[in-house]
Amino acid sequence: MNSSPSASAALRAPSPSRCKSLAEVAYPVAEELERVREFITERVFREESFAELLSHTGDTVGWDRLVLPEWMERALYQTHGSFESRTRAMSMHLAARGGKLFRATLILTTSRALSRIDARAPKLAAGLELIHLATLLHDDVIDRADLRRGSPSMPALFDNAPTVLMGDHVFARAFELISECGDMRLIASSSRATSAMCRGEIEQLQWIGRHDVPEGAYFRLIEMKTAALMGACAEGAALLAGHDHSRGAWHRFGVTLGLLFQMTDDLLDFIADDSVLGKQTGSDSAAGKYTLPMLILRDRIGGPRALRDFLEAAPSPEAIRAALRDHGVLDESWRRMEDLAQSCREQLDMLAPACADLSAQESLHDLVDFVLLRDH
Amino acid sequence: MNSSPSASAALRAPSPSRCKSLAEVAYPVAEELERVREFITERVFREESFAELLSHTGDTVGWDRLVLPEWMERALYQTHGSFESRTRAMSMHLAARGGKLFRATLILTTSRALSRIDARAPKLAAGLELIHLATLLHDDVIDRADLRRGSPSMPALFDNAPTVLMGDHVFARAFELISECGDMRLIASSSRATSAMCRGEIEQLQWIGRHDVPEGAYFRLIEMKTAALMGACAEGAALLAGHDHSRGAWHRFGVTLGLLFQMTDDLLDFIADDSVLGKQTGSDSAAGKYTLPMLILRDRIGGPRALRDFLEAAPSPEAIRAALRDHGVLDESWRRMEDLAQSCREQLDMLAPACADLSAQESLHDLVDFVLLRDH
Repeated sequence: MNSSPSASAALRAPSPSRCKSLAEVAYPVAEELERVREFITERVFREESFAELLSHTGDTVGWDRLVLPEWMERALYQTHGSFESRTRAMSMHLAARGGKLFRATLILTTSRALSRIDARAPKLAAGLELIHLATLLHDDVIDRADLRRGSPSMPALFDNAPTVLMGDHVFARAFELISECGDMRLIASSSRATSAMCRGEIEQLQWIGRHDVPEGAYFRLIEMKTAALMGACAEGAALLAGHDHSRGAWHRFGVTLGLLFQMTDDLLDFIADDSVLGKQTGSDSAAGKYTLPMLILRDRIGGPRALRDFLEAAPSPEAIRAALRDHGVLDESWRRMEDLAQSCREQLDMLAPACADLSAQESLHDLVDFVLLRDH
Repeated sequence: MNSSPSASAALRAPSPSRCKSLAEVAYPVAEELERVREFITERVFREESFAELLSHTGDTVGWDRLVLPEWMERALYQTHGSFESRTRAMSMHLAARGGKLFRATLILTTSRALSRIDARAPKLAAGLELIHLATLLHDDVIDRADLRRGSPSMPALFDNAPTVLMGDHVFARAFELISECGDMRLIASSSRATSAMCRGEIEQLQWIGRHDVPEGAYFRLIEMKTAALMGACAEGAALLAGHDHSRGAWHRFGVTLGLLFQMTDDLLDFIADDSVLGKQTGSDSAAGKYTLPMLILRDRIGGPRALRDFLEAAPSPEAIRAALRDHGVLDESWRRMEDLAQSCREQLDMLAPACADLSAQESLHDLVDFVLLRDH
């Protein structure tokens, strides 16, 4: 069913050069990434073994400190620890996943480029990863996705309702964690990015099933739903390093990188292997979400009606890939992605004088290459 | 079908005394409540007329400031303002609702009792109301509720997916607004309360349809899902007023008031008029959520099995009301609610020396009476 890894590689690599893996790019900040993982686990998972939590009574309040009527105290006392915990199972499921921590890597690498890593950077990184995680949980509800990162999604296992609530809980923990960095501007920029993500997703819903999505709408959607948060990542690292004057430039770098990130994501949806991607290829298109490669194809085969006719014939993933290749869509996509990667590199060069650490600045270039050339 | 208003009044009032309406209690802070409404409108609604927003390009980034490839600039330029806006319709629908702003009233009244109202109090109040609004949006998705505040709910009109996302957007705006108060402790306490709400709702899902819910589980659930946020309201007002030393006591007062608030809510679900309540009476019970009156009834008629048998005979709302009355459940509920109201009053008396404004302190007592005696 799927093309072999080598065939997929042939479809996507613009040149035979191999980029570093994310783990290789992130190697210099591996220790801080470990702290990010610990923060995520601590805030969302371990602490949320609800049964345990509840067994030593309440959590926000401290029941023992409330002056309560005797009948309420008795009732509370009698039910200590009597919960089964669906949440415990949910938490373990989430903990067993764990994404590639791209956003955390962006923050930590930027932080290291600008200064010695601020002790707060891993907290900020965990907070923004948690915001990303919360939106993934809600996306899975919205998309009715069965797979996430190669495993059954939360709603597939636990149903929609607890997944929506778990997402809200993760949002709340994210803001709590970011607040502990002690810089209010981080809360403001994180919440603005979160709002943009939600509004981008809402706008995206409006375009589902429409073959006439303008390219400009596509770019605005991916800016809101993906790039805005990456802008907040790079900007946040600049703020932690005390580089207030260049926060705007770092924000723009993060946004540009985020645009590129989503463009490769959307291309991978057509050409990657299921097993590498961790979800079904072609799933965006099958759900009526027409991303850039489809929009370019549309314009080359004669417009929205032609695209509709092409898709109504229910072409196989291979047939779609062939059409994208034969009409030069893959080449065009690659050309544009190279353009954007080049823009990222130029922005980094302009920011170079601010960078304290040359090898870290190189890591940022490696990160750009990774985003352009990644296969998952 | 429904009992007449007077019959309902007879079922609920423990004494013929009439309490002040919320509007009467809130009269001294009416001006600040108006500001709260303005903040809510500005952040969630007006600003979110997406079509307008997008017509002057992007919102987080400022596309014009990005160095982008020419093809992307052109695509963006060509699609300015071409969005239809489902979000605009959603925003207008939300704006047309507007709750009773109980949480805002609690914050503003506490703020006024402790000092002249801090200029930031309306912002904090709007922020915590927005958190409440976000959870309502998600609750409606989870409960598949058709009515909210007497009108069709958001998911009934707009479907689940945009409602989930709109809720997330409202959460983000809430934290942004709270961050503008400039006190990081407010972010921490708000996010902890939000997390507690979500976890309370998750736990509640586990108990749905179970006739053996322990009373202690009920109290912990209502603490997490309702009282924790009210604790954050009162505590936040104390922090704004610089009363750091008594923040814990104000938090406990808010929590106790919140427990009472949810208990009256749960009783109203059985005895209020649909038209006054704005949703169907008996809806909790019909959805398998057994709240305190049902738990007391259960213990009086012989336990979980007897309750199941009683409910499986599909009794009418009137028959349920009759059973609650005949088994003394209404009296017992009232006794307990009076207990809790008394605890609120005693806590206020202990806090009296901290209060700068006696008439505002009286408003807090009126607020307790309102929560106990309200009919919606």
